[in-house]
Amino acid sequence: MPISALPGFRDFFPEDCARRNQIVSTWRSVATRYGFQEFDGPVLESTDLYRKKNDAGAEILDQLYAFADRGGREVALRPEMTPTLARMVAAREKHYRKPMKWFCVSNFFRHERQQKGRLREFLQFNADIIGESSPAADAEILSLAIDLLRAFGFTAEHFVVRLSDRAAWMDFLASKGCDHAASLTALACADKLEREHPDKLNARLAPTGLTVEDLRTFIGQGSPQAFAPVMDALAARGLTGFVQPDLSIVRGLAYYTGVVFEVFDRSQTLRALAGGGRYDGLIHGLSDGAADLPAIGFGMGDVVLGHLIDETPAAAQRLQAALAPSLDIFVVIADEAHRPEALGIVQTCRELGLSTDFPLKPVKTGKQFQEAEHLGAQHAILVGQEWPLVKLKHLATRAEEVLDRSALVQKLKSCKLDS
Amino acid sequence: MPISALPGFRDFFPEDCARRNQIVSTWRSVATRYGFQEFDGPVLESTDLYRKKNDAGAEILDQLYAFADRGGREVALRPEMTPTLARMVAAREKHYRKPMKWFCVSNFFRHERQQKGRLREFLQFNADIIGESSPAADAEILSLAIDLLRAFGFTAEHFVVRLSDRAAWMDFLASKGCDHAASLTALACADKLEREHPDKLNARLAPTGLTVEDLRTFIGQGSPQAFAPVMDALAARGLTGFVQPDLSIVRGLAYYTGVVFEVFDRSQTLRALAGGGRYDGLIHGLSDGAADLPAIGFGMGDVVLGHLIDETPAAAQRLQAALAPSLDIFVVIADEAHRPEALGIVQTCRELGLSTDFPLKPVKTGKQFQEAEHLGAQHAILVGQEWPLVKLKHLATRAEEVLDRSALVQKLKSCKLDS
Repeated sequence: MPISALPGFRDFFPEDCARRNQIVSTWRSVATRYGFQEFDGPVLESTDLYRKKNDAGAEILDQLYAFADRGGREVALRPEMTPTLARMVAAREKHYRKPMKWFCVSNFFRHERQQKGRLREFLQFNADIIGESSPAADAEILSLAIDLLRAFGFTAEHFVVRLSDRAAWMDFLASKGCDHAASLTALACADKLEREHPDKLNARLAPTGLTVEDLRTFIGQGSPQAFAPVMDALAARGLTGFVQPDLSIVRGLAYYTGVVFEVFDRSQTLRALAGGGRYDGLIHGLSDGAADLPAIGFGMGDVVLGHLIDETPAAAQRLQAALAPSLDIFVVIADEAHRPEALGIVQTCRELGLSTDFPLKPVKTGKQFQEAEHLGAQHAILVGQEWPLVKLKHLATRAEEVLDRSALVQKLKSCKLDS
Repeated sequence: MPISALPGFRDFFPEDCARRNQIVSTWRSVATRYGFQEFDGPVLESTDLYRKKNDAGAEILDQLYAFADRGGREVALRPEMTPTLARMVAAREKHYRKPMKWFCVSNFFRHERQQKGRLREFLQFNADIIGESSPAADAEILSLAIDLLRAFGFTAEHFVVRLSDRAAWMDFLASKGCDHAASLTALACADKLEREHPDKLNARLAPTGLTVEDLRTFIGQGSPQAFAPVMDALAARGLTGFVQPDLSIVRGLAYYTGVVFEVFDRSQTLRALAGGGRYDGLIHGLSDGAADLPAIGFGMGDVVLGHLIDETPAAAQRLQAALAPSLDIFVVIADEAHRPEALGIVQTCRELGLSTDFPLKPVKTGKQFQEAEHLGAQHAILVGQEWPLVKLKHLATRAEEVLDRSALVQKLKSCKLDS
């Protein structure tokens, strides 16, 4: 039996690859508009890099593709970007002005159970602002997350950013007498409020002295003043309609220190589209103190985003429109005796930067025109017995003109092709 | 000690990533001009996929990053693209018109000894034409390899395509009475003529009945007629100056069936820049007969290419010019009281598609202009006490004008920014 792709891994046939590339280029173009600079790291890292950030038994460690390489090193396929980023920042942060606004579009690997919205290799956009602790940086990151989604055609009808604050949570838990360990337990339970039975959660909460009811009360009262500076900055940008303060969001990971958020589709049928938050101590910890910089960042994967695009006609149509096949020129060889001259024209067109194709073997003229249309060609150049004259044909309007080679080249050079 | 990247793996800091992306986008744009379509596959594949294509003990298998995943599957990081391509083609070739002209830009992994031009994770451009066995396809692939390098600013002074023909070799070896095994031995020795001592090679050749002298004689006489159809097609494109028939090129791999080639820098100080050839039986073999299509392809890595760019001033300058920092707008906040209005302008600029940055915290006006220049900003918009009037300043000429918000937006919208 022929071998197929591993479960949870994707083949990108040309139509899939075009879709993936369109998502990637949309991400890149919005991040660039925001003045973020792209970085990347290796796919393979020392396993220690991930052990260091996470407590033993953390889900991400259980899902790691980890092994010993031929040199006996313990290595792992990257499951996320933050440890690589922290490592790189610690190594060279002195070379860069602060704040550093960095993004990446990279592939990540997690040995997950197969389910909707989860693959074992996926793409993720990550953006981080490093070296700035103010709410202005929080607002910049939130705006970027919002504008990334708007660039796919989504509006406030389609998604919402649920904004929370770890600092408000920690203040509340401290006021209830929780130490660090108890606080982490309480946060883990808060993270499961919507999914687990209150009795079960109350049992887990027992050592903290808190109850599900206490957590619900805190979430219900909220802490509007914690959100004020960020919400003001979002209001100045006209983006408040996309954001909903919601203390029920706590994020699973232990290292967050301030603003945390998750982005959901409004109909709440999908997993989170994106999530992140402020992690002011992480770079210090991961770099063994080599660097100490406040930071905020988030990730947005391509899998859940792809589902929401598919389920949202406006976004699906927008993406589809960007994927229509296109070619500038198809050179039709109507007379094989003139194939060498036709090849010369193909080469000239390509050197002028025009995407150009032609038949590699003799094909009837009619079939060549069919192929030109199949490829989405704007123009055909017909080389035949009339050589040294050729026919330039605009395929949509069927308008055509007869030119000699030098007039054709002039026309191609000046980009005066009718469109 | 802070953890660093694994040996042979690269961190792409923003300046490295910009360089990498420029190489990738050059590859993509030339392949697109040639009417090739991009595809990609998973980073991780079944180890069997690579075992199948190669004889046990093949170098590529010895360098494989192979391990058992958490489900007990034997998996490997891809060391090359052809097996993935063959697998994908076999699965869906009936959906596509022939010939299929496909390319990819992917990362590959080989546990190589550390040396110049070799890394353990590298990028490689691959292009293949599948379903067409004519010399026209060979010439199309060779032209693409040439134009890829020309797009970086290289000329025939910088590189040469050494063109050979496996079929001519096989005919010669058959005429000398070699069976398949003897032929492979003879080819392996021919591949090492420039690097190993003749005595050693003669010893290896003994079972074939051939000597180093026989191989040298064949290479010296050449077989000009084998190259004629391809050379004619290249001549029609004006590209013969880049190609040198040279039967000393045989390529290491067993599966080639026709044209083979390698691209070298003219000064011959580097490893091959690119290499490939025709492999008409491979898809059939790798797909267990599910598909049987002739094919030709090649790969070009980013590491040796990067060295040649660095060593060639014209190419290095061209790349550097493409990497200059650039930003459309820097919004200078001269009066913190008007930060909200400045944020509104930032948002408007970005929504108009302009790359726009601004200070996240209060900074003296002079320092903000320095930052604008550092970021390569074309224009600054100064928001200060004059609000609702703002100043639009062209940073290179220092020309400036005072506008109200709606006049500013009109100007930004119509893209009438002076440049």
